[in-house]
Amino acid sequence: MDNRRIGVFDSGVGGLTVVAEISKQLPNEEVVYFGDTARAPYGSRHEDTITFFSKQIVRFLQTQNVKVIVVACNTATITSLEHIKKEFGSHILGVVEPGVISALETTKSKIGIIGTQATIKSKAYEKIIRNKRQDIEIFTKACPLLVQLIEEGLIDNEIADMTCKHYVEPLIKNGIDTLFLACTHFPIHKKSILKATNEKVTIIDPAIKTIQSLKILLEKENMLRLETNKPINELYVSGSSLNFKKIYKAINKEECVVKTVEIENY
Amino acid sequence: MDNRRIGVFDSGVGGLTVVAEISKQLPNEEVVYFGDTARAPYGSRHEDTITFFSKQIVRFLQTQNVKVIVVACNTATITSLEHIKKEFGSHILGVVEPGVISALETTKSKIGIIGTQATIKSKAYEKIIRNKRQDIEIFTKACPLLVQLIEEGLIDNEIADMTCKHYVEPLIKNGIDTLFLACTHFPIHKKSILKATNEKVTIIDPAIKTIQSLKILLEKENMLRLETNKPINELYVSGSSLNFKKIYKAINKEECVVKTVEIENY
Repeated sequence: MDNRRIGVFDSGVGGLTVVAEISKQLPNEEVVYFGDTARAPYGSRHEDTITFFSKQIVRFLQTQNVKVIVVACNTATITSLEHIKKEFGSHILGVVEPGVISALETTKSKIGIIGTQATIKSKAYEKIIRNKRQDIEIFTKACPLLVQLIEEGLIDNEIADMTCKHYVEPLIKNGIDTLFLACTHFPIHKKSILKATNEKVTIIDPAIKTIQSLKILLEKENMLRLETNKPINELYVSGSSLNFKKIYKAINKEECVVKTVEIENY
Repeated sequence: MDNRRIGVFDSGVGGLTVVAEISKQLPNEEVVYFGDTARAPYGSRHEDTITFFSKQIVRFLQTQNVKVIVVACNTATITSLEHIKKEFGSHILGVVEPGVISALETTKSKIGIIGTQATIKSKAYEKIIRNKRQDIEIFTKACPLLVQLIEEGLIDNEIADMTCKHYVEPLIKNGIDTLFLACTHFPIHKKSILKATNEKVTIIDPAIKTIQSLKILLEKENMLRLETNKPINELYVSGSSLNFKKIYKAINKEECVVKTVEIENY
């Protein structure tokens, strides 16, 4: 057994969807979360900058008694996972590979992928899918406004509905059967996305498969937390916590305490 | 006389509203424009980064036979104008000071200011207004989505209308008589902003006063272009030109040719 915590980070509030999945699948585990709200969104930043930020965050999380780190941000996983694994060791998981496996298990022939500009521009998903299957048609759409809407607390309202429709409609017209949410923020817009798809396609939230992989890893390496007291998650941000608290409540139906870290010191 | 061109730059397409104003007030002048579309938006970036970008752009414009440079970006003016003036000389104008003069000439008592996160967070406008007048109430609102909407070509539609309403409504409730557009992108949303204000307040577009100041400077220093052939503007971007062309057409009712610069080489 290993009672240390699970470190999770994201550019902002998106990774909270991954934390919610940990609570579901690994309800005994404690999480320490970092959201880089001062520097979000990452999606339009240079990849060197994102790697620099990711390394700072991993250094901070390593001071927090963690046994494993989940990079709960697709942009950071694509640009930085290999770099940070090389520097900080292998107990670091990303959301990309598990998400792709999940999408390929679901699709019949046509996958739509939505993500940030950096994620879509990298063509990382196309490359990974092509390596595994050549018979799948892939349609992608960068949706930079969706993260910004969430970071400003604009969810489940008319603006969110119309913006999701604007992005998703062209993919639906392409005949996709599966819509891959290649950004951990996007499940927060799930209601609006469901409306935009008329519930005709299967929506893939990579968090589910990612935490399944994490569970397998912790079991295999005998690293599960075996305390029976209720786990207490600890939440950190680098900047504003206002919308962070609002989103946390929307996802978890409870209030939270958020602390601030001077991440530039790490 | 001085037949060299006027350099204008912005994080993206916003500065095109300033170019349109040059065509109106100084129809004989030629412009060379740079829009940093690869690195837009600037509003959520660190001020050191914005100054670094601004210096690269000024160095590029200096290779383009310009007699004066207009920083057609409020965020860059606030964070970087003094730095670039120090390094590159005094023939560099920003949009902030002229805009404030214009707003103070208009308001009776309550000014609303909308801008990017960096602009609003800097409190630069409050400080400048307070230096000139102490009897004015100031209400501010950061509107990060408005730039992103424009850079994606989402203007004059339902999403733009509702997002402008979301930002402007609280200011209207505060009883403002003047709404200051502290971002050169925002005049592109003028129709949506007018709807959001029910046309009850005076909207200040700083570009008008900025180009009045430029005209005075060129006249005073005997630097007007005196050629009689039709001026030809030259447009450069660092990244995508797709929405740039769309916005240019919406503002100027004509097509344009856009060239790409590797701005990181400057």
